[in-house]
Amino acid sequence: MNDQDAIRKLIDDRVTAMRNRNGRAAVAGLARDIVAFEVAGPLTAPAAQVTDAVATQAWLNSFDGPIDVDIAELAIHVSGDVGFAHSIHTLRGTHKDGTTLDLRMRSTLGFRKLDDQWKIVHAHTSVPR
Amino acid sequence: MNDQDAIRKLIDDRVTAMRNRNGRAAVAGLARDIVAFEVAGPLTAPAAQVTDAVATQAWLNSFDGPIDVDIAELAIHVSGDVGFAHSIHTLRGTHKDGTTLDLRMRSTLGFRKLDDQWKIVHAHTSVPR
Repeated sequence: MNDQDAIRKLIDDRVTAMRNRNGRAAVAGLARDIVAFEVAGPLTAPAAQVTDAVATQAWLNSFDGPIDVDIAELAIHVSGDVGFAHSIHTLRGTHKDGTTLDLRMRSTLGFRKLDDQWKIVHAHTSVPR
Repeated sequence: MNDQDAIRKLIDDRVTAMRNRNGRAAVAGLARDIVAFEVAGPLTAPAAQVTDAVATQAWLNSFDGPIDVDIAELAIHVSGDVGFAHSIHTLRGTHKDGTTLDLRMRSTLGFRKLDDQWKIVHAHTSVPR
């Protein structure tokens, strides 16, 4: 698999993990020391929290049924052991308490190839203020 | 100059251009087809608008005195002809109408080396919602 395809697979695997509400798979592509700028504050989310499979699973479990993630306008740039990607994500789901999530957001991901494996070392997700 | 330094210079040149309220210099490092996710909506800002030196100059002219830009927690990843950087920016200034801008935001930039020159092909700036 070439690097472009490997990064695309990393992105698709996360979407599948969200859809299947699999916490461990959802964080598998993240570097332990990821610098994450998330939709909600603080400015930078603690890496230990972002990569925590148990906390991610708890969040996924708050949904009733699958979480639908749609990725549009995806562009991937890669050279050597560095890459980045940007896209527009639509996230839709219904929480067990009946509230719904329906969010269009911007996503930028930064990648590094470490030990011959691509990892997400930076994630920036936002909605316009 | 190595690539890391060239990208650092591109970032510093933009800060200097903002501080000096120089619209042309502020957009000089941007690729014509930049994909820009800005603090305020829409989801994606039109590239023609983002790279417009005249519009940028008009915005800079709305400030009374220099605009102070502070960059913290900067990390630059680069390999071959692709790079990305992330940081926390503090933007401070006073508009001519007396209102002040004092904004801490997250910045991610994506770079490509085109014709032996680094350009910003992607910019994602946000505040947590």
